[in-house]
Amino acid sequence: MAGFDKYFLMKAQDAADYATGKLKFFEAGADLETKEIGDGNLNYIFRVVDRKSGKSVVIKQAGSTARISEDFVLSLDRNRIENDILKLEGELAPGFVPKVYAYDPIMNCCAMEDLSDHLIMRGALLQRKKYPLFADHISTFMANTLLLTCDAVMDHKKKKALVGSFINPDLCEITEDLVYTEPFNDLKKRNDLFAPNKDFFEKELYGDDALRLEAAKLKFDFFQNAQCLIHGDLHTGSVFVRPDSTKVIDPEFAYYGPAGYDVGNVLANLVFAWINADTTIAEPAAQADYTSWLEETIAQSLDLFKQKWRALWDKAVTEPTAKYPGFAEWYFDGILRDTAGVTGLELCRRTVGLAKVKDIAGIENPAQRTRAERVAISLAKRCIFERDLIRSGEDYLRLLAWAAAKHPRAK
Amino acid sequence: MAGFDKYFLMKAQDAADYATGKLKFFEAGADLETKEIGDGNLNYIFRVVDRKSGKSVVIKQAGSTARISEDFVLSLDRNRIENDILKLEGELAPGFVPKVYAYDPIMNCCAMEDLSDHLIMRGALLQRKKYPLFADHISTFMANTLLLTCDAVMDHKKKKALVGSFINPDLCEITEDLVYTEPFNDLKKRNDLFAPNKDFFEKELYGDDALRLEAAKLKFDFFQNAQCLIHGDLHTGSVFVRPDSTKVIDPEFAYYGPAGYDVGNVLANLVFAWINADTTIAEPAAQADYTSWLEETIAQSLDLFKQKWRALWDKAVTEPTAKYPGFAEWYFDGILRDTAGVTGLELCRRTVGLAKVKDIAGIENPAQRTRAERVAISLAKRCIFERDLIRSGEDYLRLLAWAAAKHPRAK
Repeated sequence: MAGFDKYFLMKAQDAADYATGKLKFFEAGADLETKEIGDGNLNYIFRVVDRKSGKSVVIKQAGSTARISEDFVLSLDRNRIENDILKLEGELAPGFVPKVYAYDPIMNCCAMEDLSDHLIMRGALLQRKKYPLFADHISTFMANTLLLTCDAVMDHKKKKALVGSFINPDLCEITEDLVYTEPFNDLKKRNDLFAPNKDFFEKELYGDDALRLEAAKLKFDFFQNAQCLIHGDLHTGSVFVRPDSTKVIDPEFAYYGPAGYDVGNVLANLVFAWINADTTIAEPAAQADYTSWLEETIAQSLDLFKQKWRALWDKAVTEPTAKYPGFAEWYFDGILRDTAGVTGLELCRRTVGLAKVKDIAGIENPAQRTRAERVAISLAKRCIFERDLIRSGEDYLRLLAWAAAKHPRAK
Repeated sequence: MAGFDKYFLMKAQDAADYATGKLKFFEAGADLETKEIGDGNLNYIFRVVDRKSGKSVVIKQAGSTARISEDFVLSLDRNRIENDILKLEGELAPGFVPKVYAYDPIMNCCAMEDLSDHLIMRGALLQRKKYPLFADHISTFMANTLLLTCDAVMDHKKKKALVGSFINPDLCEITEDLVYTEPFNDLKKRNDLFAPNKDFFEKELYGDDALRLEAAKLKFDFFQNAQCLIHGDLHTGSVFVRPDSTKVIDPEFAYYGPAGYDVGNVLANLVFAWINADTTIAEPAAQADYTSWLEETIAQSLDLFKQKWRALWDKAVTEPTAKYPGFAEWYFDGILRDTAGVTGLELCRRTVGLAKVKDIAGIENPAQRTRAERVAISLAKRCIFERDLIRSGEDYLRLLAWAAAKHPRAK
């Protein structure tokens, strides 16, 4: 058995040894089964179960390059950031993140609650499962984690210390490149455009100077705006769901950034599920049933967030100038503007960029995929250009219906 | 002689001993004269001169509370920040900051170039001296230090590291309180209103909800906007001048904040000198001569900054999205907007707040002081409210003429 006193990339057996020998998580005589269950882009994740007792733990280890591409050399410090942020999120939004049992700065791993009775939400939505509590849960998570870490609420010196402790250059660079830059100029030649839409993308994205300019403005908001401690990667692949439970995972992109970044990611990724359902479910009643649940979820995720933010604001705000009449509305309006902008950016980058989503890139019928991608891009552009006006769930649904109608379903 | 191996607050003799024994700055047998020359609000400053050789050095030591008020307990780390930033500013804008010879983290002091052949600009302006090169110098200093530290130019990871190293909670808190809060609500009862203007201030500042709201919005820009490495206290009391030389000192407020904060401070403090001259110089020709030089300096400080920023932008920008057509204009427009807002805030706070300026509070004739304060506040409010429109030196001069005419000179 390895001593785990020097970093190396674990394999399944190492993870089992680690859980027993180092963590003392299992008792002697446990009958362990270990599987590498990671399907994300960055880390290695092992589930270790004792077949006898049913007790289980997840070990998540950071590698020194991303799994998605060795282009990304990543600071191992991201596991420290993940551990710190999970603890903090657990305090701010209890019950909505996995419990962390231990963090090991040498092996760059952490041991956390096994959520195998949950599903990754992206896959679950593609299986047409419904999560009636999701909008309620995610809106609470966002309102609490975002509002309670901003200068309207926090002691300003403590907030500045948090800003310092969550400076996250490597992971921010990935976002800066993949979300804010490459979808609009293919600067690093890493976009892989779906061939039937190549001309469409080249015209609508690379060829639209006004759009590129708006993306650049939003990029500088991401560079500069140390507003809230954001999750930084809050898509449906970062959420574990059960009908009665929602757990947000993978916060290694966390840093102090614009609150709208998280909200926009949630909305865009629900929209991808909607576009998939609208494009690929053949049977009209089944399609209407599922898309209407998704529409409700999209609208409620935003509208409940708005309600909860506002209610929590009135209770939690400490900064005296933030209590002036009109301030809350002005401040929140900026968050909703950023939300719309980021919704658009996420729709673009997950359609054309290096890290595509299964909801779109997984559509096997080429005519359907062509259509789904065009719906995403048409909606995205309106979200970016009209971000000063898009403010409610209904606004998003109206634009979504417009984009869907603009690109009729393939027969 | 003290060993200087443990922090204590030095007196003049200690500073002389330090310069000789610790720094080895002077040779044996030097005939030293030491004076405490600090007249700022925060630190203790000693000038040590060898009467024989004429060689001299300045020792600047941080105390653990501000000199201006024991309310402010300050991290001694600000001397580290000052040392680091002076070095960096010296690289970015050579010749415009004093040379630093040594920094001592134990005694929390630094040894730097003696600028006794320069005058503090605020006092020099009150003596009606002219500095024909000031606008040229300060605009270079601002363009270089601000632009070269922002995300349009810097490697984004290095910029994030600088953000972390210049997190400056204690000094930022002073600004947050004194500039952005107290002038508009006297929250800590530290404002000391000049009695004849008490009703005027209460109506125009505390009583103007719309103004307070704008100040709150600007405060959150100061909290959140990690745009450039700013000096943070760039008023005429932080500038040493000689006709041929300009040296910016006292950067202990430095942190990553909005670029317009520095530019607005320069403009507001030149405006104070103008208001003083316009209000108190009795002889019309002398008055016109001096105010017109100040007007030119105000306008040129901004207009040359604009020119130099733009010229340097074209040479120095590395971020590819910042090169998109229209981006430079959009980005710079935001800086000019912040500049106008901060000009207004600085005019308010230095008129009514804890740290008043001699240009105004030093006017002995009560009718004249009353008038000068009113000109400052009337101009300030237009700068804050109309910050979306105020863009050129001429704009400032037009508003200044309006405010002066609104409050005619006392006979």
